[in-house]
Amino acid sequence: MALKGKDIITLKDITKEDIEFILENAEIFEKKLKNGPLKLLEGKILATIFLEPSTRTRLSFESAMHKLGGRVLTVSKDEMTSLAKGETLSDTVRVIEGYCDVIVIRTPIEGAPKMVSDMVSVPVINGGDGAHSHPTQPFLDLYTLKKEFGKLEDLKVAIVGDLKYGRAVHSLAYALATMGTEMVFVSPKELRMPDSIIKVLKNEFGVEAEEKEKIEDVISEVDALYMTRIQRERFPHESEYEKMRSVYKLDSKIMKNAKEGMKILHPLPRMDEISPELDATKHACYFNQAHNGVPVRMAILAGVLGKI
Amino acid sequence: MALKGKDIITLKDITKEDIEFILENAEIFEKKLKNGPLKLLEGKILATIFLEPSTRTRLSFESAMHKLGGRVLTVSKDEMTSLAKGETLSDTVRVIEGYCDVIVIRTPIEGAPKMVSDMVSVPVINGGDGAHSHPTQPFLDLYTLKKEFGKLEDLKVAIVGDLKYGRAVHSLAYALATMGTEMVFVSPKELRMPDSIIKVLKNEFGVEAEEKEKIEDVISEVDALYMTRIQRERFPHESEYEKMRSVYKLDSKIMKNAKEGMKILHPLPRMDEISPELDATKHACYFNQAHNGVPVRMAILAGVLGKI
Amino acid sequence: MALKGKDIITLKDITKEDIEFILENAEIFEKKLKNGPLKLLEGKILATIFLEPSTRTRLSFESAMHKLGGRVLTVSKDEMTSLAKGETLSDTVRVIEGYCDVIVIRTPIEGAPKMVSDMVSVPVINGGDGAHSHPTQPFLDLYTLKKEFGKLEDLKVAIVGDLKYGRAVHSLAYALATMGTEMVFVSPKELRMPDSIIKVLKNEFGVEAEEKEKIEDVISEVDALYMTRIQRERFPHESEYEKMRSVYKLDSKIMKNAKEGMKILHPLPRMDEISPELDATKHACYFNQAHNGVPVRMAILAGVLGKI
Repeated sequence: MALKGKDIITLKDITKEDIEFILENAEIFEKKLKNGPLKLLEGKILATIFLEPSTRTRLSFESAMHKLGGRVLTVSKDEMTSLAKGETLSDTVRVIEGYCDVIVIRTPIEGAPKMVSDMVSVPVINGGDGAHSHPTQPFLDLYTLKKEFGKLEDLKVAIVGDLKYGRAVHSLAYALATMGTEMVFVSPKELRMPDSIIKVLKNEFGVEAEEKEKIEDVISEVDALYMTRIQRERFPHESEYEKMRSVYKLDSKIMKNAKEGMKILHPLPRMDEISPELDATKHACYFNQAHNGVPVRMAILAGVLGKI
Repeated sequence: MALKGKDIITLKDITKEDIEFILENAEIFEKKLKNGPLKLLEGKILATIFLEPSTRTRLSFESAMHKLGGRVLTVSKDEMTSLAKGETLSDTVRVIEGYCDVIVIRTPIEGAPKMVSDMVSVPVINGGDGAHSHPTQPFLDLYTLKKEFGKLEDLKVAIVGDLKYGRAVHSLAYALATMGTEMVFVSPKELRMPDSIIKVLKNEFGVEAEEKEKIEDVISEVDALYMTRIQRERFPHESEYEKMRSVYKLDSKIMKNAKEGMKILHPLPRMDEISPELDATKHACYFNQAHNGVPVRMAILAGVLGKI
Repeated sequence: MALKGKDIITLKDITKEDIEFILENAEIFEKKLKNGPLKLLEGKILATIFLEPSTRTRLSFESAMHKLGGRVLTVSKDEMTSLAKGETLSDTVRVIEGYCDVIVIRTPIEGAPKMVSDMVSVPVINGGDGAHSHPTQPFLDLYTLKKEFGKLEDLKVAIVGDLKYGRAVHSLAYALATMGTEMVFVSPKELRMPDSIIKVLKNEFGVEAEEKEKIEDVISEVDALYMTRIQRERFPHESEYEKMRSVYKLDSKIMKNAKEGMKILHPLPRMDEISPELDATKHACYFNQAHNGVPVRMAILAGVLGKI
């Protein structure tokens, strides 16, 4: 019952024990699903409130809820816009909380999920708020690594791409540091991991990650490559984006020097960071990673609803 | 089985016995929910057909259906628009009735729910048709008063706002008159309760409600204030709306003279009729009122489906 | 288990045995529904991915899934458009397959459902791809004829309308030929059944259908009239459409010469091919036909999921 009633707003709300609890229960749920339908959340209702589309996040949460026997109310952006007309978001969510037992909210407005969680008494899960936080994503990243390698310690993971603007990689770096995974950061100089993050990693976790500029520099020594998309919307200037957008392209040529069991992860969607020619190789792990969103989010939902 | 197979199109379809039946069963459902999931409507399907957005109405009906173990098909405005292309609404609903057991329809067109109910053999519930009728709203208003005060007789309720154009307050006035609740009407002279309504109240129910212009005139003597929004879309002229829009603003200063146990109701959304500073007071009842939509609509759905 | 794991992409994938299997099971499901809720697909999830609206197809599949105790994830066009931004459809569906057990896809792009079925490991059902194929429609046409007449052989069916551009009638002609139903084609000369289809019917099925230009020529001798809409979007030129759009209008005058038990079918939506004055007659069968989509799609879903 460790998570009962908790809001999941930023990774900072989450302890190492919470992470282990979620990973363990995700594994248990994944096994149990093979023996037939689950009814743990029968009678419970999840409301997904998406003020910007994020079909992946919405569908995996809704699938997770259904697989636990719960029900779903989907509130679309158009409806929220119309609801919000002449009404504050806080009034809207204080009404919706009466119709459900748990809320997942996605919004372009930083801090809105926190505000919502302060207004309502049902648990609130942040499904992404602008460039701020998307706290459930690192869980499925960790779950994927654990599932592939059987461990999170004694692993070396390269995080590749836009480490400056990419919010997800900041959360990921904290999560990996929490679990004792070794990291190496690969980015163009202009898109380095911010010093503020590097400082926290060093001071709070005792982690000092190497920094490189090319995938070729790390490909032979890492257990996993965590590829990320260079996201146009994060760049202050279009020109800066255009210069950087195609800087990393993983293909079979680069992969020649990879370890036998090396795994490629990616939070998706990908642009051209990973060549489709790698999809059928044993290294490709990104679709499984997306699918792992279901058991992980089952554990999160069951957790905050106090059912595990 | 009093409601079995009935359409709920206008309050005129509803007797005092129907109202008492729904309020009693709403209370029973609310209690039963505490003992675990219900399955009364397992295997039944509700189709919500919303030709204009009304997320509150849709979500509370869908939540109610889920809480009774039933299923939901959501038909959005965009889909209906596209469906309707080259097809009459009556053809569309005659197809949809084959996919479901009960229909809730919301439309800007007055009379459309009645027309639909004449075309199909499944029960049809009016979720609001333009300025015409929204017959399930007064049920949750009555349920809220009954829950707060334990009775509907020997209560005095002030109905405040646009009593001329506000369709909801006309239904509410009939419903309160039916149940023997005393009323006082508070509105600007220009937005008085229409004489036609006042005549019906007098002739059919023997009810003569006082009329006042200021909340201050009634605040000390009523058990409940039913605040309403001045709705722009109801006014024939924008200028008339602008003059009236902010005429009532309930705040802690006015509330000083309220009875100890006085409750504030509002069908929501509110504009600035109720100051947020009152939200945390024991008088604020409007969010609970919205939440009461779920047990009340559970009773209505179970009723028309012949399961209670 | 004949259909287990099969994709339903075109009618060519389907044998006579498959058709009989689906029709029989649809009948069984329709009977079983009368005895209470079914749970055959409890724990299973259907994802409906609709890249163009087709509410009828979506709702009947979703209703079928609910009636078997399964769950539904609805993916709208807007979401897919936004998902697809910078991502290939194949990446998108490879993610979604991890959230569900079976996919129904509707798309304006010919061949897309086939491509999707090649990418994913869950069964894929084509809910219509442009002018190409809509393979589950003929099942409900056949089911309707079988239900009305108790047989498919020794029946004569006139197919009326645009037999040139109308994709549905090509599939229907193959399906009727497969089941041994006699056909007569009624169309304007300009919209005749293509020679390629007529050749296949003759060479592969040994079927030679008469061709007529007026309903009056066949009305007295057929057991069923299968009316179709002249679809604007299928015509290369607007002028050609305008000339043809109202060429057939079935009304009570023409119907005077129909056999006593003659049935009118139509895949809907209708424009003005069938006068509403016929809706209340014993000949009208088109709304029942639409409703038959539910048991037929129950059989298809249960079939591809290996539960029958």
